[in-house]
Amino acid sequence: MMVILDPIKDERGIFEKEVRGYISAHYPGDSFEVLTLKKGPTSIGNFTQKTLACSGVLELLDELKKASAVVINCFADPCLFELRENLDVPVFGAGETTMHMASLLGEFSVVGPGDNLISWTRMQAREYGVFDKLVSVRRIEIPVEGILKGEGGLYAETKRACREAIEDGADVIVLGCTGFAGIAEKLSREIWDEFKIPVLEPLLTTYAVARSLQPFLKHGKRGLFSGR
Amino acid sequence: MMVILDPIKDERGIFEKEVRGYISAHYPGDSFEVLTLKKGPTSIGNFTQKTLACSGVLELLDELKKASAVVINCFADPCLFELRENLDVPVFGAGETTMHMASLLGEFSVVGPGDNLISWTRMQAREYGVFDKLVSVRRIEIPVEGILKGEGGLYAETKRACREAIEDGADVIVLGCTGFAGIAEKLSREIWDEFKIPVLEPLLTTYAVARSLQPFLKHGKRGLFSGR
Amino acid sequence: MMVILDPIKDERGIFEKEVRGYISAHYPGDSFEVLTLKKGPTSIGNFTQKTLACSGVLELLDELKKASAVVINCFADPCLFELRENLDVPVFGAGETTMHMASLLGEFSVVGPGDNLISWTRMQAREYGVFDKLVSVRRIEIPVEGILKGEGGLYAETKRACREAIEDGADVIVLGCTGFAGIAEKLSREIWDEFKIPVLEPLLTTYAVARSLQPFLKHGKRGLFSGR
Amino acid sequence: MMVILDPIKDERGIFEKEVRGYISAHYPGDSFEVLTLKKGPTSIGNFTQKTLACSGVLELLDELKKASAVVINCFADPCLFELRENLDVPVFGAGETTMHMASLLGEFSVVGPGDNLISWTRMQAREYGVFDKLVSVRRIEIPVEGILKGEGGLYAETKRACREAIEDGADVIVLGCTGFAGIAEKLSREIWDEFKIPVLEPLLTTYAVARSLQPFLKHGKRGLFSGR
Amino acid sequence: MMVILDPIKDERGIFEKEVRGYISAHYPGDSFEVLTLKKGPTSIGNFTQKTLACSGVLELLDELKKASAVVINCFADPCLFELRENLDVPVFGAGETTMHMASLLGEFSVVGPGDNLISWTRMQAREYGVFDKLVSVRRIEIPVEGILKGEGGLYAETKRACREAIEDGADVIVLGCTGFAGIAEKLSREIWDEFKIPVLEPLLTTYAVARSLQPFLKHGKRGLFSGR
Amino acid sequence: MMVILDPIKDERGIFEKEVRGYISAHYPGDSFEVLTLKKGPTSIGNFTQKTLACSGVLELLDELKKASAVVINCFADPCLFELRENLDVPVFGAGETTMHMASLLGEFSVVGPGDNLISWTRMQAREYGVFDKLVSVRRIEIPVEGILKGEGGLYAETKRACREAIEDGADVIVLGCTGFAGIAEKLSREIWDEFKIPVLEPLLTTYAVARSLQPFLKHGKRGLFSGR
Repeated sequence: MMVILDPIKDERGIFEKEVRGYISAHYPGDSFEVLTLKKGPTSIGNFTQKTLACSGVLELLDELKKASAVVINCFADPCLFELRENLDVPVFGAGETTMHMASLLGEFSVVGPGDNLISWTRMQAREYGVFDKLVSVRRIEIPVEGILKGEGGLYAETKRACREAIEDGADVIVLGCTGFAGIAEKLSREIWDEFKIPVLEPLLTTYAVARSLQPFLKHGKRGLFSGR
Repeated sequence: MMVILDPIKDERGIFEKEVRGYISAHYPGDSFEVLTLKKGPTSIGNFTQKTLACSGVLELLDELKKASAVVINCFADPCLFELRENLDVPVFGAGETTMHMASLLGEFSVVGPGDNLISWTRMQAREYGVFDKLVSVRRIEIPVEGILKGEGGLYAETKRACREAIEDGADVIVLGCTGFAGIAEKLSREIWDEFKIPVLEPLLTTYAVARSLQPFLKHGKRGLFSGR
Repeated sequence: MMVILDPIKDERGIFEKEVRGYISAHYPGDSFEVLTLKKGPTSIGNFTQKTLACSGVLELLDELKKASAVVINCFADPCLFELRENLDVPVFGAGETTMHMASLLGEFSVVGPGDNLISWTRMQAREYGVFDKLVSVRRIEIPVEGILKGEGGLYAETKRACREAIEDGADVIVLGCTGFAGIAEKLSREIWDEFKIPVLEPLLTTYAVARSLQPFLKHGKRGLFSGR
Repeated sequence: MMVILDPIKDERGIFEKEVRGYISAHYPGDSFEVLTLKKGPTSIGNFTQKTLACSGVLELLDELKKASAVVINCFADPCLFELRENLDVPVFGAGETTMHMASLLGEFSVVGPGDNLISWTRMQAREYGVFDKLVSVRRIEIPVEGILKGEGGLYAETKRACREAIEDGADVIVLGCTGFAGIAEKLSREIWDEFKIPVLEPLLTTYAVARSLQPFLKHGKRGLFSGR
Repeated sequence: MMVILDPIKDERGIFEKEVRGYISAHYPGDSFEVLTLKKGPTSIGNFTQKTLACSGVLELLDELKKASAVVINCFADPCLFELRENLDVPVFGAGETTMHMASLLGEFSVVGPGDNLISWTRMQAREYGVFDKLVSVRRIEIPVEGILKGEGGLYAETKRACREAIEDGADVIVLGCTGFAGIAEKLSREIWDEFKIPVLEPLLTTYAVARSLQPFLKHGKRGLFSGR
Repeated sequence: MMVILDPIKDERGIFEKEVRGYISAHYPGDSFEVLTLKKGPTSIGNFTQKTLACSGVLELLDELKKASAVVINCFADPCLFELRENLDVPVFGAGETTMHMASLLGEFSVVGPGDNLISWTRMQAREYGVFDKLVSVRRIEIPVEGILKGEGGLYAETKRACREAIEDGADVIVLGCTGFAGIAEKLSREIWDEFKIPVLEPLLTTYAVARSLQPFLKHGKRGLFSGR
């Protein structure tokens, strides 16, 4: 069974439910599991939280080893390489997967939250090897926590940033946080109608890639993933 | 219905049959169509043949417009951007898609045929934005035509080139021609058993991505694909 | 004899005449031929038209084989690699040649038409290996067809875009369409007078390079140009 | 006081003693502290160990907050960005710092252990922005654990790899593991005498940079390090 | 003894005095020498002045050979490679060293004077291998000479440019001229207080690196520095 | 009149005569001047000699100001940017021009002399913006001085290095020193006959570009060349 890993502590079981509903709405027949952390941060907005999230994930290895594939539901891709080292099944990070899928559609811009968005996105793009496809990074003035809480004004602010990215020359827009899932469908439709520019929501994009590739894709046990 | 486009003239209907059998063996329940050219080259080993192939493809636009997605079964990706301009459905080139999927697995090397392999692969990698992930390009001493004919020695020669690529430091190997489909399964298994390095056969990789993403992926009508 | 290839259908013989006059005005004694297509698009603003243009060009191979060198009069460089594969004489694309000549003068920006200008220029710059010299791409709000028709406002709009490019830090400006030939001389003079920044018109630049290099330059028959 | 952080569990107190002796031999008067982990891996050869090491480091934050600067004694730079987010003093990773110092001396090659050395080094070089200075990566056939144990043959094997790197064109060699400290002085002297090529041992290089810059260098609280 | 080389003609002994005071204020106990040119330009704002400065420097080789290390007090790094070829001690250019130190702190922008600032900085960043870390270049509207004379408005204008760089996404700002030493302390403090972004003044940064590394760093006599 | 600048001291008038004969043999009717230095090094194999050569060149400014264009006859391009700052006519460096012309023909390798060849060529390729087109650098075991003296074995050794470059995948070979002029014609013919790979001799290539472009090419007075 495929596992969607929500690498945060989900105290009231909210995120698990949301993720389950979101994926099921798009892939009704699919059977999958949503895992959240017993121990870890409640959102991921910096490297410290990313590492603490990964520590929490590594405590779930026994459960994860039953998965047929893992999707990491966070644009920062916590534990991406660590899980590849420990599992024999393919592991897909929402950030890495979506940046590569966006590259299939053209030159891309990332729209997202956080003071550190520009640096972090540039580093991710270099790390993943797609730096030359990155047209620009456009920041919204609402923090990660605000996105998760569905703060008022999120839709308008995100749309404004998308327009800037389009002005910069982007062929495709990547939403740089999986917290945008709630507004992605409407945003994607409106941006498409006005500009004919696709907007990629990272969780759905990554899930779609993963569900199809899991039967035959293997990560090598050398190279990045050679820990054994 | 999804269309696998084999962008060569298939005089005796051989390739169509092979492609159909190959995909069905991996995805038994799938329903798809295989299109070959009425007019065009019988193999694609240079830019002239690539362009002539695309001219032939453009004459099939009416049929292609009925597709729900298109997979181009050639590593050179003939007509990739042209089809995107003319169709409202996603179009996946075997070269571009496989290079990006390989990038998800690590630093990659390309193994393939042709005097022009190194130049062409470097140019493709730059064009697709993954140049920094390309560890090396290793050439086999058998031409494209020899691959399509299943020439003796192909397996051994390809395996030798894979070993060189692994020596160069590749985490994953990309077969740089869809003609390798016949030997890919055995090669992939043996390289995996010996080195734990995945070998990606481009047609299967691309088909797998396409079949999953087709429900929701749209190419923008601006940027590269804005011809209208 | 050198051939200037205008890779579009020139129904009323207008473009041939314009090209002939333009080059002769700058190189009065020169003897050259201007070829246009019998079959093909009437302008080139996307990949489909580029490929159709190349198909038309490949039907002229017999005539082109008599050339001592070929200049392709279109910034998109249709048939550049294809002609190199089929001819024993040097072939110069207006886009590739001008971007490299601009690189000799400094960091450059491209000014041109088309919704797809930014993507296409970025891809060309990557393909040709000069991505790191590209400072910016600035779009004019007039389409290719408008340029070819000499639409009112073209001069002012292009000058505005040049000013933006200079503000971005360009040492030299490349006009990203050979249709600018009509306004290039005035524009180039005025931008020079005001900013001391050169503006390169691609046809003249490429012709100048080609006429001199043709006696001794050979394209290799391996690598990109090894189709035989 | 400056802290040298040895981000591994040092069960018998061996590493702490070695590090202390090594630095004191080169900077006799210096006063510094060596911290090792209470909980964590005993060596760092993959991403999982790197993350577990960082988790262990984050439990030492109270002690680290008393430091005037932190040097991370591991080429993989575990906890580099995480510590920057949590401390107000400069944090220097042995990998990042040494790659940048090597860049000051010319084009560099990395010599080190591990099946994943090539991938990991390429990723680090891209992440740190010095990919274009990396001439080659040369692997020794002895694992990290063998280095830490001072395995026989380490010196000869490392020298062989250095010769390969010099053949590749390196102006300077970076030892890609802080475990080389024991053989670095002799190796560095012999390579210098024979080739006039410097060999950088990462711990000493990084300590030297850190001890001098600590009085005035501050990491920004935005960008990569903006977690608050 | 360490030498700070001010590679300009210092007719009234002003710069020597300023440099001496500036460094002594930060490193009170330090003993060092400041060398200026007997023959050469009085400021360095282009390549010609840079070369003439280096010619003047090469006449001081006998004096420079007594140095234990050399710091070149100019962001353009005149004579950097030439001195490395002629001296057995480490040579640090203010531009190269500061760009690499900035890279240790994050993605950086350069703020400085001169019509040629953007080109020159891009070329330096490519030459030094840190092009991918360069977020933007922001120009002040006061020429080098104005900076050296302490022209009115310099502080406000530089601060304005710093704000633009921060808006572009810089994690750290590099002042692209050693003439900013006079305003750097205040500027650095105010930018830090407002944005928590470090501002690096190149002379102080480079001196700090050099004073610590001189005991053990050697430049190779091959590669860039192999003139003998 | 066009000036070919041989930026070395030519004590016995040998080089001037050789250059004159070489160019006249290829362009019999051409009228041009060959300038050598009154003061300067007798060969250019490092940065110090490059700078000293430029100092010598700058003393010839009065003579150079009469030129209609300048070709710098040295692959290291001494005084390239300095002359652009001081002259109103185009200036062509043999290294920069030939690398860009080679880029028009495909992916290129450089074959040349000198311990510092790899570093220097990488730096030039980055500086000129064509790093991504550089396939490899292959060194001959004969120093610059040996080339200038026509040392025995030069032909065989250079041909060996060309074969290595072709093995590396080069589409075109650039001879990385203008001292190869004496053997270039035979070498170029033989490599062409055997491999169909062009070999570019930098002086002839650059002269050919310059003689044609001089009527209309202007360097901007801003950007790199804005010293006034």
